Amino acid sequence: MPEGVALVPGGSVTSPPGFRAAGVACGLKASGARDIGVLASDRPAVSALVDTANALPAAPVVRNRGLDTSALRAVVVNAGSANAATGSPGVEDAHAMAGRAAVALGLEAAQVAVCSTGTIGDRLALDIVLPGIDAAVAAMGPAGGRDFGAAICTTDRAPKGGAFRVPLPGGGAVTLGIAAKGAGMISPGMATMLAYVTTEAAVAPDDLRRLTAAAAATSFNRISVDGQMSPSDTLLVLANGAGPPLAGEDLERLGAALAAVCRWAAIQMVKDGEGAEHAVRLTVREAADAEEAEAVARAIGNSPLVKTAAAGRDPNWGRIAQSAGHALAGRAGPPALLRVTVDGEEVPGAGAAAVLERAEYDMEVTLGRGAASAVLWWCDLTHAYVTLNAEYHT
Amino acid sequence: MPEGVALVPGGSVTSPPGFRAAGVACGLKASGARDIGVLASDRPAVSALVDTANALPAAPVVRNRGLDTSALRAVVVNAGSANAATGSPGVEDAHAMAGRAAVALGLEAAQVAVCSTGTIGDRLALDIVLPGIDAAVAAMGPAGGRDFGAAICTTDRAPKGGAFRVPLPGGGAVTLGIAAKGAGMISPGMATMLAYVTTEAAVAPDDLRRLTAAAAATSFNRISVDGQMSPSDTLLVLANGAGPPLAGEDLERLGAALAAVCRWAAIQMVKDGEGAEHAVRLTVREAADAEEAEAVARAIGNSPLVKTAAAGRDPNWGRIAQSAGHALAGRAGPPALLRVTVDGEEVPGAGAAAVLERAEYDMEVTLGRGAASAVLWWCDLTHAYVTLNAEYHT
Repeated sequence: MPEGVALVPGGSVTSPPGFRAAGVACGLKASGARDIGVLASDRPAVSALVDTANALPAAPVVRNRGLDTSALRAVVVNAGSANAATGSPGVEDAHAMAGRAAVALGLEAAQVAVCSTGTIGDRLALDIVLPGIDAAVAAMGPAGGRDFGAAICTTDRAPKGGAFRVPLPGGGAVTLGIAAKGAGMISPGMATMLAYVTTEAAVAPDDLRRLTAAAAATSFNRISVDGQMSPSDTLLVLANGAGPPLAGEDLERLGAALAAVCRWAAIQMVKDGEGAEHAVRLTVREAADAEEAEAVARAIGNSPLVKTAAAGRDPNWGRIAQSAGHALAGRAGPPALLRVTVDGEEVPGAGAAAVLERAEYDMEVTLGRGAASAVLWWCDLTHAYVTLNAEYHT
Repeated sequence: MPEGVALVPGGSVTSPPGFRAAGVACGLKASGARDIGVLASDRPAVSALVDTANALPAAPVVRNRGLDTSALRAVVVNAGSANAATGSPGVEDAHAMAGRAAVALGLEAAQVAVCSTGTIGDRLALDIVLPGIDAAVAAMGPAGGRDFGAAICTTDRAPKGGAFRVPLPGGGAVTLGIAAKGAGMISPGMATMLAYVTTEAAVAPDDLRRLTAAAAATSFNRISVDGQMSPSDTLLVLANGAGPPLAGEDLERLGAALAAVCRWAAIQMVKDGEGAEHAVRLTVREAADAEEAEAVARAIGNSPLVKTAAAGRDPNWGRIAQSAGHALAGRAGPPALLRVTVDGEEVPGAGAAAVLERAEYDMEVTLGRGAASAVLWWCDLTHAYVTLNAEYHT
C-alpha cells in the first residue's frame, strides 16, 4: 500500500459514506449459501467499468456494454450460474435482472450493472433469481458489504474485500471499499473476475476511467491462477461524490491507492487460487521489451510443469528455463542467460529449497536481453485443483 | 495409414535393411533400465533433421546445428539427463558423446547426431555415459531396434515404435522404421521430443528435407500433452539407399507414408501423455484462417479446465467455449457460434456423456467464422500428472 493508506478495521465495500449493500440466498447455490448481491449508491455516482477481452463474453457483459458506464449507480450480482454462452435469451435474462433491481431500488435500469458468475452454458433460473433480487434490496444497509462479498463467491475459499482510508496531499482523506471474488479461470484480459470498488470521492468521469484502466493493468491483469480468461471478468468502480471533489495531486493519490487496493484484492485471488498452496510474485527482469517480459512471465506462471514443481517444493531451474525458452522461441536478440532467485536465494540451491516451503515468496528471473521487466502473481498446481475441476460438473 | 501401408509384425527402427541399433544400461536411470541407445546405417545415408524452436535449446541441439544434417549416418542418445541449460560445457559434453560414438562406429563425428532426454539443468555424468556408448556400439545388431526404443524413454509408459511396409505406385515397396519417445513437456514447436525414422529408400537430400518438414507439421507439431515445448525436441530421418531410388509418384507415396508414420507415433505420445486417461483428436472447423484455427485448437487442448473436465468425463461445453473465446480475444470477424460434438454426439447431452467414458474420442468444434480448420491431439489432466511432476525432482 502507498504510504499512509490504512486498512479500515472491519471495513467493506459499504465503508465509504452513501453506499448500501446486501447478500442473500435465493437457492442458486446447492449449499444454501448467499448467492444474490446488490450494491448501490444512495446518490448519483460517477462510474468506470472494464470487462473481459474474451471473444465470447457472458450475457451480462454483453448487456452492460450497451450502457453509459460512466453513470452507473448500482450493481446486481448472482453466483452459481454465469449466464455465459447462453445467447440472446441470456442477454434478455440479464436485462430482466437489471429491470427487477431497478424497480426495487427506484432507479432506471440503465443505472444498474449486472454480473453473473458460476457454471457456463446454463440458463439462469429467473424464477428464483428475480424474487431473490427483491429480497436482497429489502435487506440492504450500510453494514451489508460483507454479506454482498460473500454472495458473489463461487469456488473461493473466502470472500476478498475490505476498506482503506486514503489521506490526501491537499488535506482530508477519502475511503476506498472493495469486494472481489475469483479463484479459478483466472487470467484476466482486461479486468478480473468480479471486483467492485466504492469511494465517496467526487471524480470526473474521464479521470475515473483513466485511473481505473491504470489500476486494472497493474493488478487484475497481472495475475494468473490457470491461464484461463473468463468470459465474465468485470471491474466496476463507483465514486458517489458524498466526499470531496478531487483534482491534481489528490486525484493522483486516489489513483495510486485505487491501484494498490486492486493489487491487494488480486493477490488474494492468487492466494485463493483453486487448490493453491503457494503464491508466487514473479518478476522477469532484463527482457528486450515489455511485451517480451510479460510473455516470459506468463509462460512461466502458466506452465503446468513449473506449477507442479512449486507444489512439490522443487527448485526446478530447468523447467523455468524451458518455459522461458518456449516464450522466447523465434524472437531476435541475444540468447537468454537465465538467473533465477527465490526470496533472494539462487535456484537451484539449498537456500532455495527452504524458501519453497513458504506459502508466499518472490521469484526473480533475469534474462540479460535488455532493460524491460514485468510482474505476474501466480500459484501452484496441486491435486486439489484437479479434484475441484474434474468434479465441478456442468 | 494410407491405403496399402502395412505394419510389419515385430518390426522396429532396424527393420529397413542396412540399419543396426542397440540399447544398454549405463547407470543414468536409477532404475537400472536401458539408458544409452545407438542407431546407425551400415552405409552412407541421406538424412533430414528438424529440432526444437525453444529459444534455449539443449546442448545436443546446439551441437547438432553445426552439422550438415543431410549427411548423418548415426545417432547416439542417452535418457535420464537432458544436457539442457548446461551452457557451453554441456555442448562440449555433447561433442564428447559424438566423438566417442564415432570412434566406436568407425565414422566421422560429423556423421553422428546426439540427443539427450531427462532432467534439465544437470551436467551429464560422462564417466558412465562414454563407457556406456562403447557398450552400446558393441551390442549393435539388426535386431536391436526395440532395445534402442526402450533406451530413449523417460517417463513413457512404453516405447513407441515399429515398422511399416509401403507399396510404391511404380512397383516394389520400401520399409519405414520408427522409434520415438515422449510423455511430458510435449507441445513440439518444430518436431517432437525424440523420434527416429529409418528407411532403405534412396532419396535426394532436398526431397527428404521437404518430406520431413511436411511430416513434422502434421504430426508432432500437432500434439500437446501439457503445452510445454521441450528444449530437446528432435526428429531425425535416415534414408540409407539400400533400397530403390525414389522419384515422382513413388517419392510422394513415401512422403505420405512418412507423415502417417509420424502421426502414428505422435498419437502414441498423446495416449502415453503423463497421467493421461483420455486421448482426444480435436478438429476445429470454420475458423477465419488457419492460424486462428490452430490458436483455438491449442487454447482448448491446453486449457487445464478443459483437460480436468475430460478427466472427470464431464461434457463441459462452457469451458470449451471459454477457451475458444480466450483464443479469439481481439480478433476481427463474426462472433463464434460454437457447436461441439464428441464422436458425433452433441455437447452437452446424454450421448456425449457416454462418449467421454471412452479412452479415445474425436472432438469437433465448429466456429462459423470461415472455412479454415486445424487438428490437434491432446490428453486429459489427471492426478497422476500432478503426482508425477510434483515428485519428479531435479
